[in-house]
Amino acid sequence: MNKDLLLELISALTILPGVGKKSAQRMALYLLDRNKDGANILANTLIDAVENIQRCETCRMLTSNKNCKICLDSSRNEKIVCVVENPSDVLAIESTGGFKGRYFVLLGRLSPIDGIGPEDLGINEMLNVIEKNSVNEVILATSSTVEGDATAIFIKDHVKNAKVSRISYGIPIGGELEYVDGTTIARAIQGRTEIDVD
Amino acid sequence: MNKDLLLELISALTILPGVGKKSAQRMALYLLDRNKDGANILANTLIDAVENIQRCETCRMLTSNKNCKICLDSSRNEKIVCVVENPSDVLAIESTGGFKGRYFVLLGRLSPIDGIGPEDLGINEMLNVIEKNSVNEVILATSSTVEGDATAIFIKDHVKNAKVSRISYGIPIGGELEYVDGTTIARAIQGRTEIDVD
Repeated sequence: MNKDLLLELISALTILPGVGKKSAQRMALYLLDRNKDGANILANTLIDAVENIQRCETCRMLTSNKNCKICLDSSRNEKIVCVVENPSDVLAIESTGGFKGRYFVLLGRLSPIDGIGPEDLGINEMLNVIEKNSVNEVILATSSTVEGDATAIFIKDHVKNAKVSRISYGIPIGGELEYVDGTTIARAIQGRTEIDVD
Repeated sequence: MNKDLLLELISALTILPGVGKKSAQRMALYLLDRNKDGANILANTLIDAVENIQRCETCRMLTSNKNCKICLDSSRNEKIVCVVENPSDVLAIESTGGFKGRYFVLLGRLSPIDGIGPEDLGINEMLNVIEKNSVNEVILATSSTVEGDATAIFIKDHVKNAKVSRISYGIPIGGELEYVDGTTIARAIQGRTEIDVD
């Protein structure tokens, strides 16, 4: 049989999010024409990653070991835990370099309509970690959607013996008021803080 | 060593054209979180394709066999050859379903400044195919750039015993004159054809 590997490769590439038929074709021809080494590296890294990447046993972040680098890093403050919805949120916060505590990844948010309850988000595991490490502060960084807000409130109600805070929502830095939507402006006004003059 | 497979996968994905760090991160998390089967299929197809896809011995199209499907298809007219620059051009023409001849893929265009001469484009091989199959018509579908035009003229000068034509360049179908650039309009006027009233 004369199976068409080129078409197969193009169709395999369309499983990537945001990649349609045209981009997949461009990628396939680029890899085959000009970067076979890169294609091999990509294929082997993919196989390696799918086989070895799992959830960190403590914080549910993606890692190739039992525990992730952040949980193993003893220089980080285990008394502060930042709760996020997704692994990408951890990467986003890490890229700022400004947070030196630990994380807990919910892998979703409370959504009764989709049948996602507290047990799916590992909230009990999170409470255990908080108790075991005598965490002082839990920073909630769930998204500012109805479900994200509900998740934050649910967690706040269940955390004991630790301060619970939430990251601030408001006008993005560099943003001009006239281009910001009304809900964000209302939230920014509601969340105003007093200016400290020292 | 605690190597970070997730970051490695993200960086491997950025070799794809048009994929930056953010898209690569989204792709990696999607594959690991929600489509491990798809990731395995993609990786194996990539390895298979890189290993087995080569140039068709007749027309230089990408294929996993000695000759490509189009060259092996005896229902196609071997007396008409369409000359294109890249494999993607073959896919583009094939997707129209309107052309039933054969192809020849130059894999580039004449460009003395980049050191690309006739031997790099396999023009001798092409002339051999034209002679061997007693081709009647050579359709030049090189791009309408300075180099594409030069390539077309060069080929026209070297083809013997066959009609040489060039695909038409002009206003795209559905295009309105006011949005089309001046060079294209000038070319469309220059390439006007008489209306046949039967």
